Amino acid sequence: MPVTSTVNGVDLDRLSATIDAVKADPALARFQFRARNHWIDGGHNRTTIKGFYGAGQEDATRTQPFTVDTDEPPVLLGQNRAPNAGEYVLHALAACLAGTIVYHAAARGIALDGLECTIQGDLDLHGFLGLDGNVRPGYEQIQVTIKAAGDFDDHQLAELASLTRYSPVRDIVSNPVPVAIDVTRA
Amino acid sequence: MPVTSTVNGVDLDRLSATIDAVKADPALARFQFRARNHWIDGGHNRTTIKGFYGAGQEDATRTQPFTVDTDEPPVLLGQNRAPNAGEYVLHALAACLAGTIVYHAAARGIALDGLECTIQGDLDLHGFLGLDGNVRPGYEQIQVTIKAAGDFDDHQLAELASLTRYSPVRDIVSNPVPVAIDVTRA
Repeated sequence: MPVTSTVNGVDLDRLSATIDAVKADPALARFQFRARNHWIDGGHNRTTIKGFYGAGQEDATRTQPFTVDTDEPPVLLGQNRAPNAGEYVLHALAACLAGTIVYHAAARGIALDGLECTIQGDLDLHGFLGLDGNVRPGYEQIQVTIKAAGDFDDHQLAELASLTRYSPVRDIVSNPVPVAIDVTRA
Repeated sequence: MPVTSTVNGVDLDRLSATIDAVKADPALARFQFRARNHWIDGGHNRTTIKGFYGAGQEDATRTQPFTVDTDEPPVLLGQNRAPNAGEYVLHALAACLAGTIVYHAAARGIALDGLECTIQGDLDLHGFLGLDGNVRPGYEQIQVTIKAAGDFDDHQLAELASLTRYSPVRDIVSNPVPVAIDVTRA
């Protein structure tokens, strides 16, 4: 591995500086992410994502919001304009596992040549439809297969697998998160 | 409310037919959604979403895959090419709450003129960075505010709020989902 301050596209000097800054001032670790969704028609709705708070301030680097659409396939009465919400959960989990492995591997000097993640989630529509109170609306189980390429030994491969414990979305899906929902008249 | 088979953009005849079909053959309620992610560089990765199984067969209605990118903002060592994974979780939850309310309201004859959902999630980076084993990597709490517009009374407004219990992503985030992760050499 060449001597460089960048591994896996992650700037190690900046990563170290971030860790040092958080150690010096724990309040810098507080983040709040946000999104805003508006319904369009049927299963079609649109989310905009822009501002967030983190590292002690409101972020000002995003000049334009990101726009993300959701729809359902025809079998779920939509028109396939976009993925559905359950598919976005799988996307978020896969993306988070990838990012978590890439960053933490970089911090440990493990250089990756590639990382592919396939993911699937099983659910029973009886839950969503309210037809059986014993069936949960969400996924009953999720399976992830990650294939990593690079010049690492078996010990490091096992280390890559263990790094997924730091994944925020793995934690969110695997463990309960308190969700407060307030519904009011517009 | 006019007599129509479509409420909130949801075809009630097809919704009833779906429910009747599931009642007649419970196996039709089995769905498996899927995604595939490949890492590009640093915090930048890309998910493709296309096939799924549901209603007794592999879906064949999507001719092209959906592509969804993820990145981090500069403060998290990315380049703002796309939302990050934690933001996609908020998006998925907001989109799912919207879709769930819209479909179930339609089934109950509650016509909506609009539905806006704002959502925020708080996390402490000590968890992701591995600096404090007592801090979870994911969101400590999520807050959702939904504003509904339409010609409904207060009783129906309360009913709209209760419909969120059918949301698959609310269940996934609020309750534990078993996640199996297999990491192998490419």
